Amino acid sequence: MDPATARAALRLFPYGLYAITVKHEGDEHASTASWVMQASFHPPMVAVAIENTSKTIAMVRDAHHFAISCLHDGQREVAEKLGRPSGAASQKLKGIKTKPAPASGVPVLSDAIGWVECRVVATLPGGDHTIVLGEILGAGVERDGAKPLMLDGAGFTYSG
Amino acid sequence: MDPATARAALRLFPYGLYAITVKHEGDEHASTASWVMQASFHPPMVAVAIENTSKTIAMVRDAHHFAISCLHDGQREVAEKLGRPSGAASQKLKGIKTKPAPASGVPVLSDAIGWVECRVVATLPGGDHTIVLGEILGAGVERDGAKPLMLDGAGFTYSG
Repeated sequence: MDPATARAALRLFPYGLYAITVKHEGDEHASTASWVMQASFHPPMVAVAIENTSKTIAMVRDAHHFAISCLHDGQREVAEKLGRPSGAASQKLKGIKTKPAPASGVPVLSDAIGWVECRVVATLPGGDHTIVLGEILGAGVERDGAKPLMLDGAGFTYSG
Repeated sequence: MDPATARAALRLFPYGLYAITVKHEGDEHASTASWVMQASFHPPMVAVAIENTSKTIAMVRDAHHFAISCLHDGQREVAEKLGRPSGAASQKLKGIKTKPAPASGVPVLSDAIGWVECRVVATLPGGDHTIVLGEILGAGVERDGAKPLMLDGAGFTYSG
């Protein structure tokens, strides 16, 4: 296999941009993700691939809950901010408007297009990322009709 | 949880449209998927959620290989055709130009934007779909610069 061709082919796949949020023992954390998909209609489930070395995956494993906020095309700066590597004392959500999701208390982005909160059903190791499968516990639509922020439209590279 | 709100929130997530192809004991089969994402950089992996009751998932389990062809915005009819339920004697790929992927022999769509062929690494049950995790064995870019066919742009509903 030619790695450059594999990278080029994988970069053809379109992705939205999402904020993955988690709360554990009073600490609230977020990161940007693009590898997100629905995984079931009944019950409704989603899957997200999260970097193995991230603070996010460690917190998701401990908290057993997470949320996904779907960003709109005016939230490029939010995606950029939440996509930065986490320092030990990072407060990435500072300055971003959030509210607690009703079932889990996980913060969701009040200005996103919409969000889902999830209970972790399973995790599957997948190379340098872990696939987290979550069952939907609650959901909200905040800005119906807004256009989703896309990975290529935002000028980010996170595939390939 | 309000199921209608959950459906509405899940429908905000943007998806491309893909042909999932598989070959087993001389039988070539394809279906349309939108729940597709990359799952690892190193090694390169992808995940796809496939309906539990489909001929596709049965064949993927038997063949241990599959391919994903990323459709461009001129391939709406291909997505519609491959998205139809499979009869026992279905020949959905008839009339669609394919070629065998080099490592696995799985047919890929010659007119897609690009494709990856995969070895099945793991499967994870997820409600009414199964998440299939595949390691990339080979890839091709056929139409660099073409726009991907999007689920909402094509006017299909397959989320929520």
